[in-house]
Amino acid sequence: MNNKKNVGILIFDDVDILDFSGPYEVFHRTRMSDGIQSRLNKKTAPFRVFTVAKKLENISVSGGLRIKPDFNFKESPKIDILLIPGGMGTRKLLNCKVTIKWIKHYSKKASWLTSVCTGSLLLAKAGLLKNRKATTHWGALDLLKEISPSTKVIKNKRVVNDVIITAAGVSSGIDMAFNLVEILYGKNVVSDTAKYIEYNRSKKIVVN
Amino acid sequence: MNNKKNVGILIFDDVDILDFSGPYEVFHRTRMSDGIQSRLNKKTAPFRVFTVAKKLENISVSGGLRIKPDFNFKESPKIDILLIPGGMGTRKLLNCKVTIKWIKHYSKKASWLTSVCTGSLLLAKAGLLKNRKATTHWGALDLLKEISPSTKVIKNKRVVNDVIITAAGVSSGIDMAFNLVEILYGKNVVSDTAKYIEYNRSKKIVVN
Repeated sequence: MNNKKNVGILIFDDVDILDFSGPYEVFHRTRMSDGIQSRLNKKTAPFRVFTVAKKLENISVSGGLRIKPDFNFKESPKIDILLIPGGMGTRKLLNCKVTIKWIKHYSKKASWLTSVCTGSLLLAKAGLLKNRKATTHWGALDLLKEISPSTKVIKNKRVVNDVIITAAGVSSGIDMAFNLVEILYGKNVVSDTAKYIEYNRSKKIVVN
Repeated sequence: MNNKKNVGILIFDDVDILDFSGPYEVFHRTRMSDGIQSRLNKKTAPFRVFTVAKKLENISVSGGLRIKPDFNFKESPKIDILLIPGGMGTRKLLNCKVTIKWIKHYSKKASWLTSVCTGSLLLAKAGLLKNRKATTHWGALDLLKEISPSTKVIKNKRVVNDVIITAAGVSSGIDMAFNLVEILYGKNVVSDTAKYIEYNRSKKIVVN
């Protein structure tokens, strides 16, 4: 498939492992044609997924797993879908001007801006959730409101789509990714990918 | 918490990212005391999670993500819970005598032997699923039977527990990990961890 969409995932020390690996799985396993065979190569893959970090040094993910980012901030390719995962590391990043500036800059170029869990705190800090509906991990709902008072903070929904798509905690990111794939390529493509990764999508999870 | 259990996760080129990161998340976020605060440190964490690979070189996970393993085969610490994830890379490993031998060796020392997705093909190849019930990704059920003809291959269940615990495809590994945590530490510990990572566990998923 030509014209693949670039999915750029921000990673940082103490990013939650499932926050980014759930959507990573969904995007990189999506195919425009059904079945097992289509997953053996990338011919009908509509997405190219990569990670971006401030520097190219290894990142220490939640739990200690070490990951080598694909790109640093300065060398990142064009990003069509920008994904900001959460994790304990987001608290430190709220004070990192370079990261907030990078998010702000790349969000303008991206067609879709998404977050998982406390990743939405960084979007809020970058001023991107003003007057929008948004969600985050249940333990950070108050903090989201504190950072961005004009945001209508939604509780008890796994995915909130108000131009910017935010997900609730951790595993909700899988539903968020499926939600975006459905918007872009329809139900059949999503059903086949969900079947492939044996994921039971939650029903009525999205607030538009 | 003293006497943490070591969870050793085998990783290899083309291991599926969610196959191992799902259980990784569950084990490393489990706490013996409830709530958000307990996740800020590892005091009440009952598990220590690490990755093991044949060599200490970077592993290229499905989709291209590069991970630095924590240990190589020769230097791996004692493993209480051995987890074998799946992915396209398992096909090549079926012919890797060093890996099959390592699995066989460490399985004897481990208290629990688990797999996700096509990880069970490697257990079968190591002769560990003889005369046992087991499952795998729906696309590999026939291959599992071929490798281990005496295995009773179970379809349409996310987790099969017959001393050795095998999970169906990809995201089923999250349920597998929760199943084992429930066996070890009970429903309350599991419910609190599932709430923390906002995961809706499937019901009636286990065959014993």
